[in-house]
Amino acid sequence: LAVSLGELASRFGGEVHGDRGCPIRGVASLERAGEGEISFLSNVQFRRHLAATRASAVILEPRFLPDCPVNALVTADPYLVFARVAQALHPPPPAEPGVHATAVLGRDCRMGDRVSVGPHAVLGEGVRLGDRVRVGPGCVIEDGVEVGADSVLEAGVVLHRGTRLGARVLVHSGAVIGGDGFGFANDRGRWVKIPQLGGVQVGDDVEIGSNTTVDRGALGDTVIEEGVKLDNQVQIAHNVRIGAHTAIAGCTGVAGSAVIGKRCAIGGGVGISGHLEIADDVQLTGTTFVSQSITEKGTYSSGVPFEPTRAWRRNFLRIRQLDDMARRLGELERLIRAMRDSHEPTGDT
Amino acid sequence: LAVSLGELASRFGGEVHGDRGCPIRGVASLERAGEGEISFLSNVQFRRHLAATRASAVILEPRFLPDCPVNALVTADPYLVFARVAQALHPPPPAEPGVHATAVLGRDCRMGDRVSVGPHAVLGEGVRLGDRVRVGPGCVIEDGVEVGADSVLEAGVVLHRGTRLGARVLVHSGAVIGGDGFGFANDRGRWVKIPQLGGVQVGDDVEIGSNTTVDRGALGDTVIEEGVKLDNQVQIAHNVRIGAHTAIAGCTGVAGSAVIGKRCAIGGGVGISGHLEIADDVQLTGTTFVSQSITEKGTYSSGVPFEPTRAWRRNFLRIRQLDDMARRLGELERLIRAMRDSHEPTGDT
Amino acid sequence: LAVSLGELASRFGGEVHGDRGCPIRGVASLERAGEGEISFLSNVQFRRHLAATRASAVILEPRFLPDCPVNALVTADPYLVFARVAQALHPPPPAEPGVHATAVLGRDCRMGDRVSVGPHAVLGEGVRLGDRVRVGPGCVIEDGVEVGADSVLEAGVVLHRGTRLGARVLVHSGAVIGGDGFGFANDRGRWVKIPQLGGVQVGDDVEIGSNTTVDRGALGDTVIEEGVKLDNQVQIAHNVRIGAHTAIAGCTGVAGSAVIGKRCAIGGGVGISGHLEIADDVQLTGTTFVSQSITEKGTYSSGVPFEPTRAWRRNFLRIRQLDDMARRLGELERLIRAMRDSHEPTGDT
Repeated sequence: LAVSLGELASRFGGEVHGDRGCPIRGVASLERAGEGEISFLSNVQFRRHLAATRASAVILEPRFLPDCPVNALVTADPYLVFARVAQALHPPPPAEPGVHATAVLGRDCRMGDRVSVGPHAVLGEGVRLGDRVRVGPGCVIEDGVEVGADSVLEAGVVLHRGTRLGARVLVHSGAVIGGDGFGFANDRGRWVKIPQLGGVQVGDDVEIGSNTTVDRGALGDTVIEEGVKLDNQVQIAHNVRIGAHTAIAGCTGVAGSAVIGKRCAIGGGVGISGHLEIADDVQLTGTTFVSQSITEKGTYSSGVPFEPTRAWRRNFLRIRQLDDMARRLGELERLIRAMRDSHEPTGDT
Repeated sequence: LAVSLGELASRFGGEVHGDRGCPIRGVASLERAGEGEISFLSNVQFRRHLAATRASAVILEPRFLPDCPVNALVTADPYLVFARVAQALHPPPPAEPGVHATAVLGRDCRMGDRVSVGPHAVLGEGVRLGDRVRVGPGCVIEDGVEVGADSVLEAGVVLHRGTRLGARVLVHSGAVIGGDGFGFANDRGRWVKIPQLGGVQVGDDVEIGSNTTVDRGALGDTVIEEGVKLDNQVQIAHNVRIGAHTAIAGCTGVAGSAVIGKRCAIGGGVGISGHLEIADDVQLTGTTFVSQSITEKGTYSSGVPFEPTRAWRRNFLRIRQLDDMARRLGELERLIRAMRDSHEPTGDT
Repeated sequence: LAVSLGELASRFGGEVHGDRGCPIRGVASLERAGEGEISFLSNVQFRRHLAATRASAVILEPRFLPDCPVNALVTADPYLVFARVAQALHPPPPAEPGVHATAVLGRDCRMGDRVSVGPHAVLGEGVRLGDRVRVGPGCVIEDGVEVGADSVLEAGVVLHRGTRLGARVLVHSGAVIGGDGFGFANDRGRWVKIPQLGGVQVGDDVEIGSNTTVDRGALGDTVIEEGVKLDNQVQIAHNVRIGAHTAIAGCTGVAGSAVIGKRCAIGGGVGISGHLEIADDVQLTGTTFVSQSITEKGTYSSGVPFEPTRAWRRNFLRIRQLDDMARRLGELERLIRAMRDSHEPTGDT
């Protein structure tokens, strides 16, 4: 199971300094790595651990090479090369193909090669699973759902009617995809449910975090384009569209019909209102609140800085006076300008 | 399965302009609707799609009638009529009555007529399910829980001891009702659990979203009154009371013993502190933070507007100076008033 | 099943005023308690209910004793004594030991005495459960996971590979522990997954709320130290460390590699950025956003106060002008100082 450092270099990039034949069996941090393990240095903050590392090799940038006491794999992007090396050395544990005896399958399910369906999973009628799909214990897949090849559902995932997943999608435990959107008409103070009739389209190479929820469209579909990564406890409302390769960190909520661009990076705890658009390549820092469209790429924020509570109490109430303060400030400026104007000519005399 | 436009009008309101006999089989958006489908126009933003629609009929307000190229169902509230029509044309898929062979039932469960219990569901002792209740796959219902007629539990719902659901309650997948509230006494730095001994009462016609959590009361019950709608990933702490017909959007948290009025509309990502009251008919916009009681109906907000991060960094730190700025502003005003007072009399001379 | 008031006093502290032999069978609130029930008064807000209580006894501070119409258990910390009394009088419902016939167990699982495994639970290979562990219905425990004695998993809990729970840990329904952290390298706009290879260590006496998620470490472990209490829908990212006896309220998110001190009290809806440290004994009020380390113990806040939306709209936009306002204020101060300086000497003439 060992791979030589030279082979890692030829498969994943980087230039070997030291012993190309050095056998590598796993990855570990600079501090913990031992013989047969490869580590990486991509954050200057961890440079201090380099000198003492007992890793067999380290993936690093050229600038750190002089300080490296062991074999090195030198590359401009150590974190990326580390990702590829770690994937190669630590493949996910294999799932035994086959349908567990306790799983319950509806009629007309079509399964690809080497599909694995775990204990107590429940599949409705007409479910289609691509080759090598893995369905974890206790998952529920409703009628007619399609899951593309090499996708993995961890434990207790729910895929409701109208959900289609692409290939290589990874859905973590407890995620619910295709539940009803939150749509009601109001009839003299009472809510009347709008039937939620659309579905959810999830593209290839998407990852969806634990206990994240993605609602089906009301009419039409909710769409998660290819390569999107959603962290845990993210909430995606009905008819949202998330552009390809966008990443959204934990606890963020996106309201109905919002359209988010491609390659966005959205921090944790962000709130995005409904019926707006966010351009491609937008970055939102943690806890930002987006209540209007963002039309230009760039980085946006609205998180409020913490303070000792005693200080905060004073500033906190002033926020409610801000408009008043701004008006008074403008008034003072006018007054002073007037005073200066009336003063200066006479002052000169 | 088709219903004539005229029949829809007589059942759900509105006045037909065009062919009352036109057969309608389903609903769709203005853009996607085709023959046999009815659409609606309630948001002026979508007016541009009206002229080109290929729907067989459109539900709309009188003011849009002149622009409608097809049959029309004219009403003052198109969204509400659409909701009723969509419910009639798209009833939820029927569940086969009966208890699945893999479900596990405790002693003394009482089931109404045409109850459906899905695969791998687990019911404790003395559970009572009303007529036509549907329990989805993998649900867990603990001892003594009562579920009213026509209620639906989607997949993997957990109802803990002490939970009582009214009639026509819809609970989405992964919701947990009746888990322990978060209550501890502190004993010299260590937390001592307060046993959570109350229950959860959920009224008729309540909807509870995917992965939402509603804790049992500590003593006494947590109460969700009739007609309340909770979106996904909402957290309701112990001993909260939510008034009838209030709607709460996704990712909102309500802390212990808060009392929320009737007919409130609470946006997403809102935080409501414990032990406070919110009046009836209050609206809270997204991400508002409520740390004191709200005694008057109306709309309230505290979400902070986003900016480009560079600009935000400058403004962000000024928030910590707000109280200081307010004091300095007041001081300047006093100074200038004094200067003017001393200046003007002498200035006139 | 009744315990005398005197026995409660000797076991849990406090001094009896009244009948030591009075039999107590349960706890209830001041308003609802009846014969055989004991209540408590620890919040002056509820003092008004004391005079009319029909409890057989009340746990209270000395200052409230004169107003107490019934037997009293007098102590400096009524809430703590109440917690102990309630635990004694209301033990959790007993679970029948044994593995349910529908549970699925992998090879080489080791079970302590009187372990209970509920219906449809799934245990992987080599799982170790300590004495009296209770595994609720539908739980999934992956290969090699260890659970310490007297721990309880409610319904539908998922423990992924690499998770180790201490003794007396209570995990509520729907919690997911040990899911993948959110780690990706970027390869020209596409995300490349960093395999998440670490685990999760959970200390003794930890409580984890419903639908809360705790991710495994990337390299190394995520660590929840002993006595930590996590409420519902909390998100703990990879490689976070939470110090002993810290409590975190609902809907709070902690980003990767954050280190939180001991005995902290963190409110609901708080956001904590990654790669920072929070000192011991820090308190954060609800919805605070922590984007830098906190090095001193104390209470911190950043929640923004709500206002009527109309007022808020005015103040809200001024936040974007704050830096400009601060500069203009400074400029005015300089101007006025200059005017005064030039004015005063000449004004005197």
